[in-house]
Amino acid sequence: MPNYIAPLRDMKFVLNDFLNFEQSYQQYPAAQDNFSAEILEQYLEAAADFCQNELLPLNRIGDQQGCKLENGVVTTPDGFKDAYKKYVELGFTSLTGDEQYGGQGFPTLFRIAISEIITSTNWAWGMYPGLSHGAMRTIEHHGSEQQKQHYLTRLISGEWTGTMCLTESHAGSDLGLIRTKAVPNTDGSYAISGEKIFISAGEHDLAENIIHIVLARLPDAPAGTKGISLFIVPKFNLDSDGNIAERNGVVCSALEHKMGIHGNATCVLNFDQAKGFLIGPENRGLNCMFTFMNSARIGTAIQGLAASEASYQGALAYARERLAMRSLAGPQHPELPADPIIVHPAVRQMLLTQKVFAEGSRALAYYLSTYVDMAEFSNNEDEKEQAENKLALLTPIAKAFMTETGVESAKHGMQIFGGHGYIAEHGMEQIARDARIACLYEGTTEIQAIDLLARKVIGSKGNLLKALTDEIQEFTAQHQQHDKFSAQVQQLEQLVKEWLELTRDVVDKMQQRPEEIGAAAVDYLYFSGYTVFAYLWAKMAIVAEDKIAQGDTDPYYPAKVATAQFYYSRILNRTLTHAAMIRSGMDTLFELNPEQFKFD
Amino acid sequence: MPNYIAPLRDMKFVLNDFLNFEQSYQQYPAAQDNFSAEILEQYLEAAADFCQNELLPLNRIGDQQGCKLENGVVTTPDGFKDAYKKYVELGFTSLTGDEQYGGQGFPTLFRIAISEIITSTNWAWGMYPGLSHGAMRTIEHHGSEQQKQHYLTRLISGEWTGTMCLTESHAGSDLGLIRTKAVPNTDGSYAISGEKIFISAGEHDLAENIIHIVLARLPDAPAGTKGISLFIVPKFNLDSDGNIAERNGVVCSALEHKMGIHGNATCVLNFDQAKGFLIGPENRGLNCMFTFMNSARIGTAIQGLAASEASYQGALAYARERLAMRSLAGPQHPELPADPIIVHPAVRQMLLTQKVFAEGSRALAYYLSTYVDMAEFSNNEDEKEQAENKLALLTPIAKAFMTETGVESAKHGMQIFGGHGYIAEHGMEQIARDARIACLYEGTTEIQAIDLLARKVIGSKGNLLKALTDEIQEFTAQHQQHDKFSAQVQQLEQLVKEWLELTRDVVDKMQQRPEEIGAAAVDYLYFSGYTVFAYLWAKMAIVAEDKIAQGDTDPYYPAKVATAQFYYSRILNRTLTHAAMIRSGMDTLFELNPEQFKFD
Repeated sequence: MPNYIAPLRDMKFVLNDFLNFEQSYQQYPAAQDNFSAEILEQYLEAAADFCQNELLPLNRIGDQQGCKLENGVVTTPDGFKDAYKKYVELGFTSLTGDEQYGGQGFPTLFRIAISEIITSTNWAWGMYPGLSHGAMRTIEHHGSEQQKQHYLTRLISGEWTGTMCLTESHAGSDLGLIRTKAVPNTDGSYAISGEKIFISAGEHDLAENIIHIVLARLPDAPAGTKGISLFIVPKFNLDSDGNIAERNGVVCSALEHKMGIHGNATCVLNFDQAKGFLIGPENRGLNCMFTFMNSARIGTAIQGLAASEASYQGALAYARERLAMRSLAGPQHPELPADPIIVHPAVRQMLLTQKVFAEGSRALAYYLSTYVDMAEFSNNEDEKEQAENKLALLTPIAKAFMTETGVESAKHGMQIFGGHGYIAEHGMEQIARDARIACLYEGTTEIQAIDLLARKVIGSKGNLLKALTDEIQEFTAQHQQHDKFSAQVQQLEQLVKEWLELTRDVVDKMQQRPEEIGAAAVDYLYFSGYTVFAYLWAKMAIVAEDKIAQGDTDPYYPAKVATAQFYYSRILNRTLTHAAMIRSGMDTLFELNPEQFKFD
Repeated sequence: MPNYIAPLRDMKFVLNDFLNFEQSYQQYPAAQDNFSAEILEQYLEAAADFCQNELLPLNRIGDQQGCKLENGVVTTPDGFKDAYKKYVELGFTSLTGDEQYGGQGFPTLFRIAISEIITSTNWAWGMYPGLSHGAMRTIEHHGSEQQKQHYLTRLISGEWTGTMCLTESHAGSDLGLIRTKAVPNTDGSYAISGEKIFISAGEHDLAENIIHIVLARLPDAPAGTKGISLFIVPKFNLDSDGNIAERNGVVCSALEHKMGIHGNATCVLNFDQAKGFLIGPENRGLNCMFTFMNSARIGTAIQGLAASEASYQGALAYARERLAMRSLAGPQHPELPADPIIVHPAVRQMLLTQKVFAEGSRALAYYLSTYVDMAEFSNNEDEKEQAENKLALLTPIAKAFMTETGVESAKHGMQIFGGHGYIAEHGMEQIARDARIACLYEGTTEIQAIDLLARKVIGSKGNLLKALTDEIQEFTAQHQQHDKFSAQVQQLEQLVKEWLELTRDVVDKMQQRPEEIGAAAVDYLYFSGYTVFAYLWAKMAIVAEDKIAQGDTDPYYPAKVATAQFYYSRILNRTLTHAAMIRSGMDTLFELNPEQFKFD
């Protein structure tokens, strides 16, 4: 297992210096004394303590043991249940819950920062409370008062956990194809029947009840996505007082064997006339889901960040210690039999790549979370709408870009370990296996790319994009003459210009053939990701420069600036290829018909 | 398990149309009637039959069961032993062996083509005969007559297998640090003591004896790489007639737990005064190893090709069948509930990327193998030297580029499967896990990059590179006015020009700081890889165009041309980033000292 120490210094920089969150959150009517940097730091330290001491030691155990299914009962790996108990006792399940139902009412930003630490130490374990959160948000936004009293209170308290049941074996990205049925019972409930797959945390022994949020079709519902409704299906039905009564007709029939996240139970769930309760309006199930989709996708993006951070920490420690060969400039440590591998440029390139991805992802995730909070807490309708718009544009970028760069970082982490990176005991390969799922679930990278380009950018006639590029251009105009960072600011200005040009290029081409959108989308997403990171890195560098100019001698600040310089001089080279890909168009993608792809 | 059908059509194209191997091999004095396309095809068909029917069904079993170690005895997964027995009976172990010692004397090209099929169906199994081959080559080139009689004959017959014991826990890339000792015994043998790790096929139940080739230090040997000698250490000692006698002092003390290749036993081997026999001159062990390093690295490159091919075949079948959403151009299959995902540009982009990597890798591996054979079989010293030079330059490119693109292909294969790609039963994630080792062993990608740029290109003062660029420039000059492919030929011409410019750029910069080589090397390797593939794809396209011009109506040929066009219009965009990376230099890599990489 690589060691992990929560990067509190960098987290505090992003929260306090970069986002200045305390001041900006004070303007919200819901703000209380406890929306403060001090309280947040206490929570972060408590989370660091819990995660480093409780969750990290269980990470490899979870990977090795996996979950076990016997007679419909799922047992989680040793220690998972105890850790969950402690987590509940520490109050983490109720952190952002509605105070009316027992929650602490903290902003999403708090939860996101904490979930970074959880996921960095034990991704698979973190998915149990992660999925509960999805169920909580759904009931909070769309549930009836009785549903909130019955289910939400118990989810917030952590007594019960929740799931999201969307996928069926033939329907993943295309939920319009789902077949699970909901037939009205005479008592106002519904009989839910069908098979759901890939249900994370779908069955386990951490809590006494599990509240499934299930997509299903009413009889005679319209075909496709407009005929899907949302239901609450508890594992155990409740009596009229809301206490656990008889077992409901939902069973786990199998656990998936997966590349990673072994400690999380990925279930096939069979619903056989299970009692369910409609949540939200009939046939509007997908719309209800979308209300918290952004927040769920930021949750997945955080997993990408966690992979970057955890693999970076593991690789850094190894690169400082492992001895192999001499620097090309001659021995740097003649007293040792060989130099530590951190002297080698290729190793530094990989480490710094992990570093800019980890720290850039942290900045993006926290920045985005301030918009989640603004959309929820602001009483200014204009501001709310702007926040929603920023979220709409940036969420697919964050989800896809942070998870793909997380996978890349995990690969570098293994590579720095050489052959040892392939060995389970070092823990680097587990990070790579765990991280891989994040580019697939919650909408694949390709789905995010289409969401970004087709729905968000083109769908808004460029308005969502313009709101962001205006913000960046305001920043570049302001800092064009910056003492130390003007060259990079000008580079950013060019990049934004190119982003807009590339967008027009796709819009022009799609007039001829609409598939041009699909041919460009993935590279457009990467180009957008590198540009957004460039914006965040420039802002962070200038904040750090300001600290230095003010006489702050913390060596953290010059390191931040140097890291930003690396990003600009090395990583941004990647935009050249993505821009060329967007420009090169779809022609050669469609020359072969499906039969011509292979000849035996 | 994805299905796999040996791509015999494409293999024959590369062997016959592209390399015209039969004709060129006839000039070798050692050539016999059996260096023929017909015989090779018979072998390929026999290999396809064996691999598809025997090895493929064992692939997932091997992954699930792994190897077991009890009391020093290693048991391979169910079926592995029987498959090995059949493999021996079919004569595959003796294919390229020296005829004096029971071999069939076939060229390396035959073995490489067959090993592609083996590895595509069962990578882990294929490593057992693969490692034997390394041991055979070593003894063939450096062993004494008695060593050949005793060991080589039994390796060629397949009765015994072999290993290569290089790595120690503290010494992988830097073999100069190894500590295993060899102390002379009075009888001319040596007592070998030390611990070797990562010994593939180090212990198993497939054969009754295992012949270890071990790197160790003689007493008072010079420090570093110039004090390493090579020894034969059999698992069982032989009596004077060469028959198995008592157990030697080498035991497997542990099996590694790995990300993939579970079916191969990766052993910690403890040598405790094991009886060993010097092979080759004292202190020249590494030089002896280098004689077959190129061929071993092509063997690893083939594994990258296998990953590309196997994941391509799996993904292609899925993409043709899986239904999700409609084409952006409107329903392509209105009779179905959704369109097959092969209509989506992002899916096509991934499939075609796998395809150009698989087929490009095949072309490169087979092309390189013709140089292995030329170096071995030619009686023209000039030609031999030219072949060695081509090999020296192209081998690190093939090893690193084919394995990295193999890993990328495997990632695309999972991605095309969506969430199902993460599930073990589909077999796509196993390909990704197995493939990952190839970028680490036999010299990491970073080691290959330094080998290419520092040793081969700069070390030869550009002569090795010039030999290849001359060849390519001759080709581009010849085809600049090609009817159909002139645009791409001109693109290739520019690329070669840039390759030479970039080389000069690095050479200029390294005068100031030698680490510039390290900062450029990995991107230089990728740039070289894409350029070499561009050369091969242009050549293949023109061969295919010629067939079409001659009236051949096989639909294989236009598909080949279209695939080459995809490579030129889409994949070559990647060179922009690599060129910019090489030009951007090392400055920002060395701003941080090791302490500044992380602040808690």
